[in-house]
Amino acid sequence: MPFPKQVRLVEVSPRDGLQNEPSPIATATKLELIDRLAAAGITYIEAASFVSPKWVPQMADHREVMTGLTRRPGVTYTALTPNLKGLEAALECGVEEVAVFGAASEAFSQKNINCSVAESLARFEPVLERAKQAKVRVRGYVSCVLGCPYEGEIAPAKVADVSKALYEMGCYEVSLGDTIGVGTPLAAKRMVETVSRDIPMGKLAAHFHDTYGQALANLYAVLEEGISVIDSSVAGLGGCPYAKGASGNVASEDVVYLLNGLGIETGIDLNKLADTGTWITQAIGRPNRSKVSVALAAK
Amino acid sequence: MPFPKQVRLVEVSPRDGLQNEPSPIATATKLELIDRLAAAGITYIEAASFVSPKWVPQMADHREVMTGLTRRPGVTYTALTPNLKGLEAALECGVEEVAVFGAASEAFSQKNINCSVAESLARFEPVLERAKQAKVRVRGYVSCVLGCPYEGEIAPAKVADVSKALYEMGCYEVSLGDTIGVGTPLAAKRMVETVSRDIPMGKLAAHFHDTYGQALANLYAVLEEGISVIDSSVAGLGGCPYAKGASGNVASEDVVYLLNGLGIETGIDLNKLADTGTWITQAIGRPNRSKVSVALAAK
Repeated sequence: MPFPKQVRLVEVSPRDGLQNEPSPIATATKLELIDRLAAAGITYIEAASFVSPKWVPQMADHREVMTGLTRRPGVTYTALTPNLKGLEAALECGVEEVAVFGAASEAFSQKNINCSVAESLARFEPVLERAKQAKVRVRGYVSCVLGCPYEGEIAPAKVADVSKALYEMGCYEVSLGDTIGVGTPLAAKRMVETVSRDIPMGKLAAHFHDTYGQALANLYAVLEEGISVIDSSVAGLGGCPYAKGASGNVASEDVVYLLNGLGIETGIDLNKLADTGTWITQAIGRPNRSKVSVALAAK
Repeated sequence: MPFPKQVRLVEVSPRDGLQNEPSPIATATKLELIDRLAAAGITYIEAASFVSPKWVPQMADHREVMTGLTRRPGVTYTALTPNLKGLEAALECGVEEVAVFGAASEAFSQKNINCSVAESLARFEPVLERAKQAKVRVRGYVSCVLGCPYEGEIAPAKVADVSKALYEMGCYEVSLGDTIGVGTPLAAKRMVETVSRDIPMGKLAAHFHDTYGQALANLYAVLEEGISVIDSSVAGLGGCPYAKGASGNVASEDVVYLLNGLGIETGIDLNKLADTGTWITQAIGRPNRSKVSVALAAK
C-alpha cells in the first residue's frame, strides 16, 4: 500500500464550519480562529465565502475577514466565490486563491444553487477566466459524491464527469465532498478510483463528512488509493443541514491523530490544534465533536 | 482484498456497556435490552459478569439476569467469569458459554485485577478445566492490545503471547481489546497479523474502543486482514474509565452501517438495532453515541 508520505489538511472550519451558525459570530473571533489554526501548523485555510448575505448571513463579513487577516508565510487563505460578482469582491480584498462549487447530483444542484449542473458549470467559466487573468488559483468542489439527500445513490461516473469539467476548466484541485456523510469505504475507494482515471490522484482531495460516523474509515480507504489532501474542520464544527443535530465535517484533530498513527506527515501540532478546538467551541457555545480532543482533555 | 462474507457481532452493551453506570439499573431493563438486541438479529450477547458485587456493583444481579433471560433459538447468552467461584455460580444459572479476561500489559493486569499476567493465566486454568468438564465454551479477552494507560505502547509480540496462552488453554476464540481506544489502522493490522501467526484468523475477534474516534477505521483495516468477529455496544454504551467523559465501546449501529456498506452480511436489522439504542439511552439517561442512530433520528 503506497500511502502518501505527507498529507495537506485543508481547514474548512471558518467557512463550512461556521456558515450555518444562526447567531452572528464576531469577525474578531473568526480572525482569531484563523490565526490559531495557522499557528497550529495548518497551511491552507478556507477563511470566508463571497456569497450574498441574503443566502448566508453568517458570511456577510467576508471583506472584513479577508482584509483583517494576519497573513503568515506559507499559509494560503482562500474564499468561496460562486460567481463573478463574488470573485471581483474577493479580488478587491487581495485574495490569492478562491474556490467554486458544483454538485454531482442534479436535484441537489437545483435545490442548493437553483440551477442545473450544466448551468452551474457554465456559470463558473467566466469565474475561472477572470481568476486566471488575475493570477488567482481556483479550487473546485464537487458535492454529493457518495450520495444525495434527494436522489440517493450517485454513480461514480457522474462524479467523474463534473470533476473532469472543473479540472479542464482550470481548477488546479478538485475536492470530492460526501456532503451528507453517507459513504462507506469501498464506495469511497470506487468513486476516487473512477475520478482518478481523468484527473491525477495528486490533484484530488477528500472532503468527507462524519454524519454516519464513517469519515475516518473512508479517509483511511482513500489514503490507500493515494489521496493526499484532506478537508476537515477543527472540533468537527459544522453540522449537517440535511439531518439537524447530526455531525457534519470530520474533526481535524481526529484526522491528524489518524495520520500521525499512520506515520504520515502533516506539519501540524496536534495539541495546539486541539486547544484551538476547545477554545472555539467554548467561544461559540458548541459541543466539541473531536473525540481526540475530548479524550485528551479528559485524561 | 478478501473481506469476509459474513461478520458476527458480539454485543457487549449489557455487560461492558453498563458495568460502570453509577446508579443501579433495574434487572428488568437489562433483560429488555438483551431481548431487544436479540430481536434485532444479534446472535451473541454478553449478558452479565460473575464478579464480586464489591468490585462491580452494577453486575450484582448476574444470577437474576442469566436466569431471567428469554432464550431465543440461535442466540448465545454469555457471562464473564474471572475465577472458579464465578464460573460455578454461572453454571448454576445454566450458562452455555463464559469468558475470561487477561491483559497484554503487566501494569494494567496489576492495577485492574491485582496480579501479574502470568498469575492471571494460571488462575484461568482451573476455570478452563471446569468449563470443559461442564461442556461450556470459553471465550478469552485480551485487553490493552494497542496501548496501555500505564505503559503506553504494547508490543504486538506481547499480545500474541497472551493470546496464544489463552488459545492453547482452550479458549475457542480470543477477543483483542483496544481498551483505551488509542490504536490506529496500521498498528491494528500489524497486531492482528502478529497474533494470527499463532491463532487462525477465524478464531480472533476485534474489540475496539472509539475513545480517539479511530474504531471504525481500525475495524476496516482488520477486516482487510480477514477478521470476521467484532465486539460492539449499542449506542456506544460504556465510557472509558481512563478518560472520564470520553467514548468507550464502538457503537454497534455504526459497525453494522459500515458492514452493510461493504456488502458484508450480519443478519442484523439496522433500524431495529437503532431503535434499541434510542430506547436504552433514554431509559438510563445517557447520550446516544451512535452517529448512525443520531443521523437516522434527525432525518
